[in-house]
Amino acid sequence: MIKASIIGASGYTGIELIRLLLKHPDVEISSIISSSNRDIPIEKTNPQFKKILNLTFKEFDADLIKEADVVFCALPHGVSQEYVKLAYDLGKVVIDLSSDFRYKDLARYSKDYGEHKYTNLISESSYGLCEIYREEIKSSKIIGNPGCYPTSAILGLAPLLKKKLVQKDSIIIDSKSGVSGAGKKSDFAYSFCEVDENFKAYGVAKHRHTSEIEEKCSFLYGETLNISFTPHLLPVKRGILSTIYATLTKNLDKNDLIEIYKQFYKDEFFIRIYEDGLPELKYVTGTNFVDIGLEVDRKTNRVIVISCIDNLIKGAAGQAIQNMNIKFSLNEKTGLVMAGEYF
Amino acid sequence: MIKASIIGASGYTGIELIRLLLKHPDVEISSIISSSNRDIPIEKTNPQFKKILNLTFKEFDADLIKEADVVFCALPHGVSQEYVKLAYDLGKVVIDLSSDFRYKDLARYSKDYGEHKYTNLISESSYGLCEIYREEIKSSKIIGNPGCYPTSAILGLAPLLKKKLVQKDSIIIDSKSGVSGAGKKSDFAYSFCEVDENFKAYGVAKHRHTSEIEEKCSFLYGETLNISFTPHLLPVKRGILSTIYATLTKNLDKNDLIEIYKQFYKDEFFIRIYEDGLPELKYVTGTNFVDIGLEVDRKTNRVIVISCIDNLIKGAAGQAIQNMNIKFSLNEKTGLVMAGEYF
Amino acid sequence: MIKASIIGASGYTGIELIRLLLKHPDVEISSIISSSNRDIPIEKTNPQFKKILNLTFKEFDADLIKEADVVFCALPHGVSQEYVKLAYDLGKVVIDLSSDFRYKDLARYSKDYGEHKYTNLISESSYGLCEIYREEIKSSKIIGNPGCYPTSAILGLAPLLKKKLVQKDSIIIDSKSGVSGAGKKSDFAYSFCEVDENFKAYGVAKHRHTSEIEEKCSFLYGETLNISFTPHLLPVKRGILSTIYATLTKNLDKNDLIEIYKQFYKDEFFIRIYEDGLPELKYVTGTNFVDIGLEVDRKTNRVIVISCIDNLIKGAAGQAIQNMNIKFSLNEKTGLVMAGEYF
Amino acid sequence: MIKASIIGASGYTGIELIRLLLKHPDVEISSIISSSNRDIPIEKTNPQFKKILNLTFKEFDADLIKEADVVFCALPHGVSQEYVKLAYDLGKVVIDLSSDFRYKDLARYSKDYGEHKYTNLISESSYGLCEIYREEIKSSKIIGNPGCYPTSAILGLAPLLKKKLVQKDSIIIDSKSGVSGAGKKSDFAYSFCEVDENFKAYGVAKHRHTSEIEEKCSFLYGETLNISFTPHLLPVKRGILSTIYATLTKNLDKNDLIEIYKQFYKDEFFIRIYEDGLPELKYVTGTNFVDIGLEVDRKTNRVIVISCIDNLIKGAAGQAIQNMNIKFSLNEKTGLVMAGEYF
Repeated sequence: MIKASIIGASGYTGIELIRLLLKHPDVEISSIISSSNRDIPIEKTNPQFKKILNLTFKEFDADLIKEADVVFCALPHGVSQEYVKLAYDLGKVVIDLSSDFRYKDLARYSKDYGEHKYTNLISESSYGLCEIYREEIKSSKIIGNPGCYPTSAILGLAPLLKKKLVQKDSIIIDSKSGVSGAGKKSDFAYSFCEVDENFKAYGVAKHRHTSEIEEKCSFLYGETLNISFTPHLLPVKRGILSTIYATLTKNLDKNDLIEIYKQFYKDEFFIRIYEDGLPELKYVTGTNFVDIGLEVDRKTNRVIVISCIDNLIKGAAGQAIQNMNIKFSLNEKTGLVMAGEYF
Repeated sequence: MIKASIIGASGYTGIELIRLLLKHPDVEISSIISSSNRDIPIEKTNPQFKKILNLTFKEFDADLIKEADVVFCALPHGVSQEYVKLAYDLGKVVIDLSSDFRYKDLARYSKDYGEHKYTNLISESSYGLCEIYREEIKSSKIIGNPGCYPTSAILGLAPLLKKKLVQKDSIIIDSKSGVSGAGKKSDFAYSFCEVDENFKAYGVAKHRHTSEIEEKCSFLYGETLNISFTPHLLPVKRGILSTIYATLTKNLDKNDLIEIYKQFYKDEFFIRIYEDGLPELKYVTGTNFVDIGLEVDRKTNRVIVISCIDNLIKGAAGQAIQNMNIKFSLNEKTGLVMAGEYF
Repeated sequence: MIKASIIGASGYTGIELIRLLLKHPDVEISSIISSSNRDIPIEKTNPQFKKILNLTFKEFDADLIKEADVVFCALPHGVSQEYVKLAYDLGKVVIDLSSDFRYKDLARYSKDYGEHKYTNLISESSYGLCEIYREEIKSSKIIGNPGCYPTSAILGLAPLLKKKLVQKDSIIIDSKSGVSGAGKKSDFAYSFCEVDENFKAYGVAKHRHTSEIEEKCSFLYGETLNISFTPHLLPVKRGILSTIYATLTKNLDKNDLIEIYKQFYKDEFFIRIYEDGLPELKYVTGTNFVDIGLEVDRKTNRVIVISCIDNLIKGAAGQAIQNMNIKFSLNEKTGLVMAGEYF
Repeated sequence: MIKASIIGASGYTGIELIRLLLKHPDVEISSIISSSNRDIPIEKTNPQFKKILNLTFKEFDADLIKEADVVFCALPHGVSQEYVKLAYDLGKVVIDLSSDFRYKDLARYSKDYGEHKYTNLISESSYGLCEIYREEIKSSKIIGNPGCYPTSAILGLAPLLKKKLVQKDSIIIDSKSGVSGAGKKSDFAYSFCEVDENFKAYGVAKHRHTSEIEEKCSFLYGETLNISFTPHLLPVKRGILSTIYATLTKNLDKNDLIEIYKQFYKDEFFIRIYEDGLPELKYVTGTNFVDIGLEVDRKTNRVIVISCIDNLIKGAAGQAIQNMNIKFSLNEKTGLVMAGEYF
């Protein structure tokens, strides 16, 4: 059994990691670390775990890390790198769910997140977008788990980018996310009476996930790309749907592109390409799937890609486990095959 | 592997049965039967099953039943008994999710549901409320899976009734259910614009689940009970919370009653008693648990019990699987242990 | 024009008062007072008022009260009485939306809310439940605007109580409220991810509105009543639906009772009695109406009353304006006649 | 008093027209016509009108039109033109809420909606987008009330188009609408369990509102434009938020553009330009306002415009009344000034 320790275990991502790891046949959760909930049994703070998990939140202690094989850091950026460093120095596999190890270009990172203290660790890290970076992940000790918006956007665009089927500066990503993406907060902006029956854009032309998307898309395209990215807040708990626009460089129709996507992702279990119809948010919520559909607008020569994920699973905890599976040479699907509840 | 056939597989309960059976290590779904969707692959009607389940809905055919070990009937009452009879005659274990085999007193049944055509089968059937009727279930070939409201109400009341701790005619059950309880329908009353931001009572003083609740509660109490039951429609997809009022016959406080409940359900994995706090709907949605808490109102000498279930799981598909586990001598928890998504 | 000043104008009740007063033809809002938002134009904090209201929140200042004819206090209890006293001493009509002037029996008040500092003002005050206390309201300078739950409960019960048609200790009030009833808060318990798709009871057997309900119902009944009251939190923004149970003392059927209710409320514009069907939450949200329907359960001899209000309107701001209309001898309906948006 | 008759009065738009006209000081509703609800009092089908409106749905009869001054047609396209013709022939002002009189180019109309039977009436009609076509409206007897999506899109783009500040083929409109936009339907796709917690795009690259948007935007721009338009279904009852992307032709920053918008709409009461922040859906729901904000993305030289309306008010019934006000030389704001409920 792989022993897993979760640091920052009481946030939404931490709790989702726990819920998913409980279904994993090869993992034992060795410790759940949360200073704000230290010494409280998880069934008190999260009664959904009553009779399911008999663990108590612990204050951080290096000994808890020592006894683990894999460490998941579900902490805010900046804070996270301290614990990543520590776990790395103890020789552990570290999967970091913050933005601290997502970037190769630290100038991009610093602009959005401030100075990085452990720049020498960047070369030891890989970007944990499994379908694209599987080989790098296998050989890294630190995995920077991707952001939720970037996961939906990059995977939705990858076949087009890799084959340069779209014009360089034509990409627009209009994303809509459920509220859990904001994390566990008492913030008034996320109170029920504010969010219910509402909808809004936020961070327009300045959201920090833009640089992460641009770095990875540029890499796939082979040139530096500037991308417009607009996130919106949906009145739902979970899920991201990204509507992606790009101008085609060739005269391709829907069937051509579907074939290209199917070929590109032919070995990827977690990518589902829609030949007919388009994905909807609820088809993926509760799962690790990325559902992708598309249409071509002849008149404007644009492709419109719809890419859906569950922000807490493929966009966070599920992809983290997928990364762990890769790293520990398990079948990548282990513990992650499930149909969503839907209703 | 137990081979399972589901008749009426395309409704909400049928789909939930499929989703849950996919997690069951000892079951193989041998056929999914739905005349309205015949010959359509399930991934077309329900894309959440893409890459998860490669089955096609079939028209009913006795041969499909013959190759199964267990038959789940998820059909409307009246229609259901025809298929139950047929499967029974073929020697199969039949778990019927309609109301056709829930009653012992057919006068009660007929008053609410019309004439029963196979009255001789009643003696072959048991009421599938696992925690109360486990022994009868083991020795029956037909199991009448309980209604969703009755499951939440009876299990919430059982310890009080069995020990006659409440006055005979004092019981009031005020229940609130999510919309999936109404089944898969195009009915205008269940359209989004009608239900969203709304709340209403329905079937007041005449809902058909009243007679099912009364029959089973009377049996537990040892006298015929008249009970007030009021269902309400919540603007949520799933879950039932019942607020149950009864006047105590003895001077008991909260701790006394909690102790009695804990003792009564001490061997029941799926019953969770709250010593502190009270259950909320989201603690159980997505699970087979029944969460029960209570308070005593000294001033009025009433106990107020809060009982929560997921109407589609413990109130339908999950309990059906629990019944199958009992019937096939599996560990009762098999395939049914999971924490809810919560957010 | 009546000049109105609102103290505590930035909370949910304060904002709703402003929104409703803008529709009132005889009122001019002279000041909106909120220390936490002082000197901020309301269109900045609440953009829904852009181009509608050109006012700026002010810090409290007695001069603002002096220039007003009526003062609405939308402050927390305890704090509120200080401002009520001050406005009263300045000779103003004061409508207090806190619990500070709702009680006649200060022992009840103190038990739930702590000591009252201005006990001598109680005799100057009346309980602002317009349909029942209209005459007292006309002759008082301080009006204690009723709580939201009590408004729905007392008006739903009044005809039964006044005529002693129900057994003394048989009354149970099972109420369900939208989230705005909790007020404007950054409390985690009211965050979207907690409330959405959830439902729960709270304050069971100890909610403070119980004593307010009991005092007023006892007064109507002519004897001291003990009542069970259970509030629940609905995942909707606004509205209260109370399901009220009581055992009848006489053999009355639905039609008899409907007739009694219609007679009792025959001059009350804001009370709508349902002869057929039952009210639903959305029929009243956005309005000052109280919608009441009922059924009789022959078997148990109970009446089940459904009483619906908008917690922010008839349960707070609307009733406050209705009280103002009474006090200033305006037609009681002025500014308060509107159909709800419904969808 | 202007006498108004509403044909198709029982749909969502018809009901909203009734609700709004009740607030209009110069209008009396002379008849509400709905064959499916004929002879049923509106308070039976829509209890929110109890005590508010004492009218009964009527079967269509030309006499009902004769006694009206203005006729609102809230019928499906194709059917609507028959009644428009009839009312026009009777000399009435007709405001048609279908798509039948929105187009000048009947080739566009026919492609999306089929053949038009009264092509000679097109020249008698004007497009009822008040802020842009006020003069034409004044002199037309038939007003084609704009679609909901086109209203949000065209008004969001008009200043940019009129001044040719954006590149011809760069416009992308990503719109998100509440469910009431689909009309009153028993369609399974709009059932609560399908829509709740879900989100999806639909009609991608083929929605019929595209041609309406293109015709009007081309007119404003002075050249034929091809525009990408993607509608999405939000799990809310009402409101449309459009996120509009376009590439700037000049080096303009946010302040420049805000100034241009403010200038362009300086006399328009119902347009609210956001200098700081961006509009959210709830700021406009329940109102006739169009709230517009924008950001400029330097890196990509794109402007991102956020344009919000209430689809049933400014997107349908409210704009219809605004058109009536224009046509009858009333103050355009009459009956339409209100702040939204927000919570």
